[in-house]
Amino acid sequence: MQDRLHFAAFDVTTDSREELIEMLRMWTAAARDMTAGTQVGDGAPTSYDAPPTDTGEAMGLTAAGLTLTFGFGPTLFEKKGKDRFGLRSQQPALLRELPHFPADNLDPNRSNGDLCIQACAHDPQVAVHAIRNLARIGFGTVAMRWAQLGFGRTSSTSTEQATMRNLLGFKDGTANIKSEDSEDIEKFVWVKEGDDDRADWLAGGSYLVARRINMHIEPWDRTSMREQELLIGRDRLEGAPLSGGTEFTELDLDVQGREGPLIAIDAHVRLAHHTQNKGVKLFRRGYNFTDGTNALGRLDAGLFFIAFVRNPDEHYIPMQTQLSSQDALMEYLQHTGSGLFAVPPGVTSKDGFIGEGLFT
Amino acid sequence: MQDRLHFAAFDVTTDSREELIEMLRMWTAAARDMTAGTQVGDGAPTSYDAPPTDTGEAMGLTAAGLTLTFGFGPTLFEKKGKDRFGLRSQQPALLRELPHFPADNLDPNRSNGDLCIQACAHDPQVAVHAIRNLARIGFGTVAMRWAQLGFGRTSSTSTEQATMRNLLGFKDGTANIKSEDSEDIEKFVWVKEGDDDRADWLAGGSYLVARRINMHIEPWDRTSMREQELLIGRDRLEGAPLSGGTEFTELDLDVQGREGPLIAIDAHVRLAHHTQNKGVKLFRRGYNFTDGTNALGRLDAGLFFIAFVRNPDEHYIPMQTQLSSQDALMEYLQHTGSGLFAVPPGVTSKDGFIGEGLFT
Repeated sequence: MQDRLHFAAFDVTTDSREELIEMLRMWTAAARDMTAGTQVGDGAPTSYDAPPTDTGEAMGLTAAGLTLTFGFGPTLFEKKGKDRFGLRSQQPALLRELPHFPADNLDPNRSNGDLCIQACAHDPQVAVHAIRNLARIGFGTVAMRWAQLGFGRTSSTSTEQATMRNLLGFKDGTANIKSEDSEDIEKFVWVKEGDDDRADWLAGGSYLVARRINMHIEPWDRTSMREQELLIGRDRLEGAPLSGGTEFTELDLDVQGREGPLIAIDAHVRLAHHTQNKGVKLFRRGYNFTDGTNALGRLDAGLFFIAFVRNPDEHYIPMQTQLSSQDALMEYLQHTGSGLFAVPPGVTSKDGFIGEGLFT
Repeated sequence: MQDRLHFAAFDVTTDSREELIEMLRMWTAAARDMTAGTQVGDGAPTSYDAPPTDTGEAMGLTAAGLTLTFGFGPTLFEKKGKDRFGLRSQQPALLRELPHFPADNLDPNRSNGDLCIQACAHDPQVAVHAIRNLARIGFGTVAMRWAQLGFGRTSSTSTEQATMRNLLGFKDGTANIKSEDSEDIEKFVWVKEGDDDRADWLAGGSYLVARRINMHIEPWDRTSMREQELLIGRDRLEGAPLSGGTEFTELDLDVQGREGPLIAIDAHVRLAHHTQNKGVKLFRRGYNFTDGTNALGRLDAGLFFIAFVRNPDEHYIPMQTQLSSQDALMEYLQHTGSGLFAVPPGVTSKDGFIGEGLFT
């Protein structure tokens, strides 16, 4: 996982299926160039009297581990009752706007979209360059709806390969699926053939859940260490469960202290744990964000949560319903942005393009 | 120069000189801890029932080259006619709100402030952690007024130690003073004893000019390569002046082409050049920024310009007046934030604190 994120959601501004396909073809070619560390259109001769094919700010930089992930929102298939691109019959049954969760305070200008792109790289200039060039290529076909920059742990400046810390100061994601857990990845991440008869094009892909989670930083910073650890259910220094052991020791949800279970009934790690969620584990890609201050002079900061799930109805919505209604930590959190996107499988042939299975 | 910036401006919310001094003392101690790569208050025993002395999200990370630079705005000395802290008689004559420049479109919520902090580090998490902890320490004494995140060239992912590129895709700062140019640094950066009789406390310090410069990215990206290079006055690939040579070749402002000087009369590099500004050279610390999209779906992006000058009236204001009225590039730029701050000299004694010369 790279250290930096630039995530962008777009609305399609044309009703032409052909224009949409043509843009996806151009995006595919540009993504191929940029993830290889070359410029968009590299090698092709261009006129000095035309705009450059690449905006140029990543010249001299490497690919910096750039990956680009594309997603299709529910409104690509049907928007206000309209089937703009002849895709309605192929909309996955599970691809719907996420339900309202308790304590959601969503900003429509930070939510949803017809398309999304997740750009991850070790260098923000590379990630920003990628989104910008794709937006530029899409000019006239799409308009950017919202965007989010994020940052994580910088392995190169870390003293060890540790779990990243969120802005609550705690290690985040200890119990989530790792890329090496291939059995869990198959079970909870990749959509399989037969999962959805309407959407075989999505087999080998996944659903991307995006949530912009603001943290009430200032009240949190005035909370005692004891209270912070009780709310999370882990110690802050090591990230070990309060039931004992070290960071990767399994939680013991039953062990009792003098005042009840050591990991409280409303502790975050208990409610998010797979034993409390019908065995469901999450594959996440979380990035911290800081977007200046809000109108009250408080930090507009938190976690931009991204999860890839095979089935949002089983692998995300129940867990979030439980967390948003019972997690004591919610006092310090507010979800301000949201999106659900279907991520088609990768392009495998030389002439292929992003989402081609949907259009053939 | 580090790759990442978190800049914050604060308003002092108390009228107590003692509280202000006490906070500056605490900021000094915290800055010492954090720039050494340890946690705030490291080593001091704290109660488990108290909030942690450090917010924790930089645990496990190194100092990442963190530097912290503090500045005092004009309103610290006098605000709405009021001398809150008994400092009025020591306000430097040159420390005033910057004048309105043509084409300025300043957002008051991104401008000015009683105090500022510039945190630079190679890891954004470290820079954000520093500002957040200083804000937390200042709670009750200061409130954050605005903040800006920035990013530059990541040397670790660059194929060479090249001049960073701005979001126009061009190398930026080629002709500015380098840290090694000690004669220019003395002449144009450090305030000297005798420069200002009212403000001897500032000798050994400098003035910090902050300008948030939005770029009209989308129109720029539709401009021909020829036009882009004419507007800048350099070629895009190498950053060489259009008068010939390579990046660090001196401009030849007189050499003529078929349609006038090769470096146009209204080219950016000509108007910013020291020969066109009474010999003045600039010492800059610029960072690119991207803050999502604006209401029109356009990238809210550009350059967060920081310069350190010995004398804003001679070393910044005339140059900016010339640029904002004559530079053809201004068609693609809009200044949306502004601030001028006096940066006191560094703390040299063990018991000293930031700006101590002002309070003794």
